[in-house]
This record gives sequence, C-alpha cells and structure tokens, in this order.
Amino acid sequence: MKLDINGILNAQRLAITRALSFVENTNDLDMSLTDALFPNLGKAYRIGITGPPGAGKSSLVDRLIGYWRAADKKVAIISVDPTSPFTGGAILGDRVRMGRHYADKNVFIRSMATRGSQGGLALRAQDAADVFDAAGFDIIMYETVGVGQVELDVAQAADTTVVVLVPESGDDIQAMKAGLMEIADLFVINKADRQGANQAFAQIQAMLEMRHPEDGIWAAQVVKTSALQGEGMTSLTDAIEAHQDFLHKTGIIRQNFRQRTRAKIQTRVEKNILNEFWNPQKQAMLDEVMETENLELLSPSQIVNSILNN
Amino acid sequence: MKLDINGILNAQRLAITRALSFVENTNDLDMSLTDALFPNLGKAYRIGITGPPGAGKSSLVDRLIGYWRAADKKVAIISVDPTSPFTGGAILGDRVRMGRHYADKNVFIRSMATRGSQGGLALRAQDAADVFDAAGFDIIMYETVGVGQVELDVAQAADTTVVVLVPESGDDIQAMKAGLMEIADLFVINKADRQGANQAFAQIQAMLEMRHPEDGIWAAQVVKTSALQGEGMTSLTDAIEAHQDFLHKTGIIRQNFRQRTRAKIQTRVEKNILNEFWNPQKQAMLDEVMETENLELLSPSQIVNSILNN
Repeated sequence: MKLDINGILNAQRLAITRALSFVENTNDLDMSLTDALFPNLGKAYRIGITGPPGAGKSSLVDRLIGYWRAADKKVAIISVDPTSPFTGGAILGDRVRMGRHYADKNVFIRSMATRGSQGGLALRAQDAADVFDAAGFDIIMYETVGVGQVELDVAQAADTTVVVLVPESGDDIQAMKAGLMEIADLFVINKADRQGANQAFAQIQAMLEMRHPEDGIWAAQVVKTSALQGEGMTSLTDAIEAHQDFLHKTGIIRQNFRQRTRAKIQTRVEKNILNEFWNPQKQAMLDEVMETENLELLSPSQIVNSILNN
Repeated sequence: MKLDINGILNAQRLAITRALSFVENTNDLDMSLTDALFPNLGKAYRIGITGPPGAGKSSLVDRLIGYWRAADKKVAIISVDPTSPFTGGAILGDRVRMGRHYADKNVFIRSMATRGSQGGLALRAQDAADVFDAAGFDIIMYETVGVGQVELDVAQAADTTVVVLVPESGDDIQAMKAGLMEIADLFVINKADRQGANQAFAQIQAMLEMRHPEDGIWAAQVVKTSALQGEGMTSLTDAIEAHQDFLHKTGIIRQNFRQRTRAKIQTRVEKNILNEFWNPQKQAMLDEVMETENLELLSPSQIVNSILNN
C-alpha cells in the first residue's frame, strides 16, 4: 500500500483513511509509517472514555464533539471495539448515535477491532491516534467498553482518562475501588437524572477524599451529567481542561509522550526478536515434539530448553 | 514455596490450595510445577462457561455442580475475574451464589484474577486447571465474563465452550454472529421463562442451520434453560455429554490436549527469550534513548535497530 505522508500532514481525508487501513492491516514489523509520522506528533490531546455497556458513553462523546467543534477544534474518535460477541450490538448502536457528526469534515470517526492484536489497543489504536495527531487533529478520543486489560490500555494511551458510570453503579463502587482509582482522572456519573445519582456521586467523592493528594499529583474529580439532555456538560469540559492544564504545568504531558514512545519501541523490539526466533527450524522443532506419541512422558521444561538451545 | 506434589496427586486440599497460590504468584519462568504435574494430566474434562454480565452464568454453574455431584463426580470451578472495575461486583455476587457447594469436599471453587498476566487466562488459569486435573477432579469449569480476547482464551482452554445468553440478547444476535460462531460449541438461552426466549432460540437455530456441518465437524446446538428454577438442565447436560462423546470418538479431545501443551511450551519459550534479551544493558539503552532532549528528531526504527543489534 502506498502511503501519502504529505496527504496525511495536510489532513487529506483519503490519505488518512488509507493510513488507518495500513495501521489495521500491516505487518507488525513495518515501521515506515511510524517513522514518517514521528517528527509530527505531540500536538493532539488524547482522551480515553471508558465505562460499562449502557453507561451512555457515546451520547457523552457526541456532546463532547459538539463542544470542541463549537470551539473550532478538529476532533477524531477512535471507537475501540473489543470485537466481543457480546458488545457487537452496542458498538453498532454507538456509531449510529454519533451519526450527526459524520458529515462534518473536521470530525473523523473510526472503529477499530482489537481482537487478535497482541498488545491490543496499546499498539494499533495508538498508531491510529498518531495518524490523527500528525494530520493536525486537536482532540483525539478513544471510546471503549472497559473490561479488564482494556482500561489499563486506555489509561496508557490517553492523557486524560474519563470513567463513565451510572447512578446504579453505586452498589458496585466499593468493589471496584482499587481498579477505578488506578485509571480514572475523572469520573462521570451519567444519566444523573435517574434515582441514586447523588448517592453514587457522594460515594465516589468519599472514595476520592480518602486519598491525600500531594503536590504534583492530580486529585481525581467527579461530575454529574445527563448527556442525552446535554446537562452537566460544562462541568465535565471544565474538569477535562483543568486536568489538561495540570498536565502542561507539571510537564507530565511530555512524560506521557515519552512513555508512549517507550512502549512503542519496546513492543517493536520484542516482535522483531520473537519473529526472528521462530524461524522454520524452531517451528519444526515445536511441531515435531507435539507429534510425539506419548507426549506425557516428556518434560515440558526440557522441551522448552531444547527449543531455546538448539 | 514448597510444593507438595504427592499431596496434590492425593487431592489434599491444603496441597491444592498452595499449588494454586504458586500458580498465581510464581515467576513465569519457573516450570517446576508444570513438570511435576504433566505426566498426570489429560483425565479431567474442561468446560468453559462464558457470556455477558447478568446472563445467569453462576446459577447455571451451580446447577451443573449439583448434576455432576449427583453422579459422584469431583468438580472444580475456576472463576476467571478479568479484574475489571466494572465486573468486580458481579464476581463477588457469583461467589455468594455458589456458596452452598463450599462445604462439599468434592467441590473446589477458586477465583483467579487475570489482570497484568500476559496471555491471561491462557497461561495461569490453565495451570490452575492442571492442578485440579492432576488431583483427580473429573470436571473443571472455567466461568468468566466474556468480552473480547477472553472468550477466545476460554475456547482455547476448554474442551466444550458454552455461551450463555438471555432472551433479550435476541436483538444483538445478528451483530454477534461471527464472533459467536467462532467459539461456541453450545448455546444456552437462560432465563427462558422471560419473554422473547422462543424468538432468540429460533434466531440461533436459524444461524446454526446456515452452516452445513460436514463429517468430523461438530454441529453446535442451542438449548433453553431457567437455571434459577432448575428447568431445562437435562437438555443442557445431554448436549454437553453429546459433545464430549463426539470429541472422544473423533480423537479431537487428544488434539485439544496437544494444542494446549503446544501453547504452553511456546509461551514459556517466548518468556525466556524476552527475559534474557532485556538484560540491564538493553534496558539502559531504552532508558537512555527516552532521556533524549529532542526525542522527535530520532527515528523509531533506528532506535529499534540499535537496541536489537548492540
């Protein structure tokens, strides 16, 4: 595939689309796009929006798009689809809900599947975000259904991580505590017109107050919204911008860029090493061992050692 | 930690508990337990139960435990907790619901977290299942909230993969089609007393009929249950046993064991290689590059190459 780097840098839609397809389909060892974009990175602000199915993430994202478009910012959305049979429907619905922005040339919405991609979000979706960054998009949002490893990946890929909950999440907040504190810069209680919103809000605030934030450490915030009705959005965008200011003042935004680059380098190094190791001879050794009639008479550690050392 | 291999083989509870802790906490390179158990594997039947939150998986598992206990089988349950902030609560609830079997010495219920473990379920939960297999358990059930990568891991780790849905899943089945077909040996429409059960059942059957199963290929089945009320359980256990018979007759059960062993060997080989590669000198190279003032003037592929080649 021919990559049109100048086209990307000039924000040409066709060049961007082709680069995104390249990111999804290319061999993991090909770094031509990475190299070409690298000097042009670091301008976009990256926001991760994560939360359980049904929390209203896409309505929230839709409102945020509207907010930044009103400020004449260019916005890209990467919908990270864990390609689960169980979330397939939800994601399809999301796309429809954000549809009103499809015609806007300064909004770019892209769904990405992470299934099968080792290192998942951390590699491919970040490469996609790099395309948008180089193309001059101001805001990049990752939207994803957060389960397990996915939130950690989002937190690593984003400057600001927003965890979206609903009033009914209240009961679970105690159980979620450790996991949530690890990743969230901001909490949103969405659908706050429903019963229990104040209680969920108070629970999260109590949880946050148990931390004693020091200088140079961000104190996570919680806000209430009703995204469908457009309520509470100012408190959310204020909080995002407060976090953004904090990252700039402390220089953490630069560290984020360095850490993402480090992870990118490390992943590529490891893929190269493993790719080189599993040459046809080593693969044949593994195949042959597995053909052994009485496999259980072998010692797994001896097999590992013989593959390593021969 | 001292491992009591004889204790495990004699199904001593303390020895099993210690071995499971070893599996969760040990260094990935230590193969002492793997080696010791390997000659004693291959007797247990492994069943994966996966589905979205709220599908009633734990009630179903509870009923299945009862069924196999009535047949005097020893049953182990590995609750795979993706350690998501969003599923934490559900898993806690599950444990409570299966509580009535806790006092039964021939039932062993263990929760495992997969967060942070590269290769997740595929490595640690399989090692845990191996402990139960060697200890003479007849049935091992993995119970997990299926999202994204997790179902694929379950399908790899299990002989029979059961996907649990609810009548309301109907709307999503079309969207889920490809992902579901890939992993499910059996579908369960649970909570079948609720509206839409027949429709969901018909949708899945129509989906299954579009496949033209050949000789030697399992034709996936769908059953309706109301696990809480204990209804439909015979059709489920019949279907599981039909699949089990099929795997034995075709010899696929033996291939499953070989494939799991192969994956285990490959993962350990790769962990060894990467562990050896990232010696202090290579780590220092990566650290040093990341300290560069004008990082964006560097070429990522050159950094990768210099780390690989020096």
